[in-house]
Amino acid sequence: MTIQTPLSDVRFDPDNEGAGFDAAFIAVEVARLLREQQHSVVSEFLESQELADIAALIEELDDGDDLAAMRLLPLHDQAELLGYLRPRAQIGLATRIPRRELVALMTAMSHDERADLFKQLDEEAQEAILPAFTKAEREDLRRLAAYEEWTVGSVMTSDYATLKPEMSSTQAIEALRMQAIEAETIYSAYIIDEDRKLIGVIELRDLLTARPRQRVSEVMDTEPVWVRADEEQEEAARLVARYDLLALPVLDNNDRLVGIVTADDAMDVTAEEVTEDFYKGSMVTPLEISVADATISVLYRARIFWLVLLVFGNIFSGAGIAYFEETIAAHLSLLFFLPLLIASGGNAGTQSATLMVRALATGDVRLADFGRLLSREVLIALALGLTMAAAVSVIGVWRGGPEIAFVVALAMVTIVLIGALIGMCLPFIFAKLDRDPAAASGPLVTSIADVLGVLIYFTIAAQLLAL
Amino acid sequence: MTIQTPLSDVRFDPDNEGAGFDAAFIAVEVARLLREQQHSVVSEFLESQELADIAALIEELDDGDDLAAMRLLPLHDQAELLGYLRPRAQIGLATRIPRRELVALMTAMSHDERADLFKQLDEEAQEAILPAFTKAEREDLRRLAAYEEWTVGSVMTSDYATLKPEMSSTQAIEALRMQAIEAETIYSAYIIDEDRKLIGVIELRDLLTARPRQRVSEVMDTEPVWVRADEEQEEAARLVARYDLLALPVLDNNDRLVGIVTADDAMDVTAEEVTEDFYKGSMVTPLEISVADATISVLYRARIFWLVLLVFGNIFSGAGIAYFEETIAAHLSLLFFLPLLIASGGNAGTQSATLMVRALATGDVRLADFGRLLSREVLIALALGLTMAAAVSVIGVWRGGPEIAFVVALAMVTIVLIGALIGMCLPFIFAKLDRDPAAASGPLVTSIADVLGVLIYFTIAAQLLAL
Repeated sequence: MTIQTPLSDVRFDPDNEGAGFDAAFIAVEVARLLREQQHSVVSEFLESQELADIAALIEELDDGDDLAAMRLLPLHDQAELLGYLRPRAQIGLATRIPRRELVALMTAMSHDERADLFKQLDEEAQEAILPAFTKAEREDLRRLAAYEEWTVGSVMTSDYATLKPEMSSTQAIEALRMQAIEAETIYSAYIIDEDRKLIGVIELRDLLTARPRQRVSEVMDTEPVWVRADEEQEEAARLVARYDLLALPVLDNNDRLVGIVTADDAMDVTAEEVTEDFYKGSMVTPLEISVADATISVLYRARIFWLVLLVFGNIFSGAGIAYFEETIAAHLSLLFFLPLLIASGGNAGTQSATLMVRALATGDVRLADFGRLLSREVLIALALGLTMAAAVSVIGVWRGGPEIAFVVALAMVTIVLIGALIGMCLPFIFAKLDRDPAAASGPLVTSIADVLGVLIYFTIAAQLLAL
Repeated sequence: MTIQTPLSDVRFDPDNEGAGFDAAFIAVEVARLLREQQHSVVSEFLESQELADIAALIEELDDGDDLAAMRLLPLHDQAELLGYLRPRAQIGLATRIPRRELVALMTAMSHDERADLFKQLDEEAQEAILPAFTKAEREDLRRLAAYEEWTVGSVMTSDYATLKPEMSSTQAIEALRMQAIEAETIYSAYIIDEDRKLIGVIELRDLLTARPRQRVSEVMDTEPVWVRADEEQEEAARLVARYDLLALPVLDNNDRLVGIVTADDAMDVTAEEVTEDFYKGSMVTPLEISVADATISVLYRARIFWLVLLVFGNIFSGAGIAYFEETIAAHLSLLFFLPLLIASGGNAGTQSATLMVRALATGDVRLADFGRLLSREVLIALALGLTMAAAVSVIGVWRGGPEIAFVVALAMVTIVLIGALIGMCLPFIFAKLDRDPAAASGPLVTSIADVLGVLIYFTIAAQLLAL
């Protein structure tokens, strides 16, 4: 397959969202050029592209071609490229790279990314490459890889820039210049004492605007924001976002600096956290791996628990209906309104829960706001319930006459009010009990609202229609 | 009220999450100190705190005290502090600051934040302060404030650092040093020609590691990632995240540089976008303002539309039940299983929809993956359905005998399978039609699954029980 457009004119559009060619299309062309030994054409094309886009291209290439294309990049870019690959592609490629080459690549990778890659290798591969690293790097790898998946330690990197407090600003800038190739960032630098205890943080910007002979100790922030390595990674993401940090220093339990969490890694943590919140909202157990790569059995297990649990929750609704069988048998037209009433309580509750879960997560609302919001919610829910009651009572008159219409309207107001209040209160209760409010959303609220909806509807019906 | 701990020893814990005192508590103490004219104590305390935390404190102080506390900070910090306040608090404070002082503060604010504040002032206040700005600032304010709320232009800032291509790296660093006080960031600098057309981007890091006499034009990236000012702001956030950028240049339709979007502003856009997705998932119309500040009528309008629409959706379920009234009347025990079966289809569908919506949003899954994922979903849904059928058939035997148990089990497998497939396909269909997949989640899937659930259950029952 040949294309008219020469590769140099191709506009890369990795997600195929607008004009341009997507990764799969370009991969065909790149594979052809590689087959024809036109390496310089490919090389020139790759040079003009962003590494994140090249990663998407590499993922589309067949085994062999992907390595050949990657090797056209300078070593440092190859190392960075590896970090952009999705986990499955990364490990697939890494296992095909010769040991010596892999070690060179991993030495050039940023420390957090190479530790993540190392963790994914099987034990045999780990033992095969470890001896080829320097002692310091071996220890760094082991230390970073040892942190548990959910901790700050698992997302921090150890290639941060350090300065001494007695340096002049000119000396400090020179020191950062020397560290620029190795360090993940030089825009924030960390001042540590002989025990590696953190005594200050300085921004390169402040060094540049300081007087040349001013000392680091005079300019640095001596009370920087920091986090412990064994705290939850979300805490690091929260601090980075709250204080608009470029990087957050991480301390061990002896106050020694052990790493930093950069803003882009914090963003990745936030994205993971958001995904978890979405999953909790629809009762999917959070996955350890990407949905695209998950096996049938992983997804089955992530979903079956809540589905079965909710089945048993719904048995209460069923029992509620069974309890009122006589009323139903006498007024079968009541059944017409059952799905609609039950669903409305759940829907109103889900809305309230989502509004609160999200507001609590973003800090828009605090626990102390509960009282004020509760009274507002009562009024909103009444307004919603009355509007919906008006809508259904029209249908009620038509389907079952004025008596049924009144029962349905009264049930609607009550059910929407109760549903909305449950939806609003549950996230606060969860937060108060130090549980994640996100777990209090959607299906849980709906299940509770379902049961109560059945009971409220038929109780009202039994009372009023028996008269 | 006095506290034992002197203010200097107080650990500020703004969200009241761990040890330390929250903003409300500290506000009481600060108010007392201000009353007692102990300004230096407050001043010293504020100096040791982060501006984001001081903002939380200012929001807790009464009118008057908040201004008094803020004025203890240097002008530049006051300007930055204003940017940390939540919109309602910010506008509340701004309207109480004397005109001349407000202009001085806004001059020191970053350009995007002062434009946001300006937009919030009423017309009278806008016209009162405009003449006090310099001509260039007035034009900058007007230009930034003119962008529509959802555009890149509305989140970009115009105080970026620029360099000339012919500068040596030493000259360039010196130029950035001069711009450091004014510019939002100097870590990325923009190279423009005489028409303000963007010809390159350079990182300060690359300037530092360049040879002293190397020219900017030799080191800069001549094909940087950029975005148009009139595109959707989510596009800027997506690019910043994808390419791990510190700042993204923004061009007008004539390729002239008009601003940059910094990583922290991109994070705010992402957070807003996530909130919108959560809202869509629970059928709340996205709000223009914060939930905490929204009035009853704003929230009522954001919720009633979908609630009423879903009521009408549920009428189909009711009609389905009404259609099968005879079957139901003959086997009232079928009703016991109705909520459980309907809910299971909706729950399985919601799970599938959430998994797909999120995977599409993060780029974990692309449209091209549909076929592969569909066949996987069929197998997962069958496994889920069979497990749940096994669970309910036990209850079925107990409540209604083997015949009912068989009907319920068969209905369960079918309903879960159909629900899951709808949940999986809808987000893809929405994405294919260039609509936001997030709108295809939760309640919409549940409503469709509800109707189909009723029809499937009673059709199976009518067929099998009539034998």
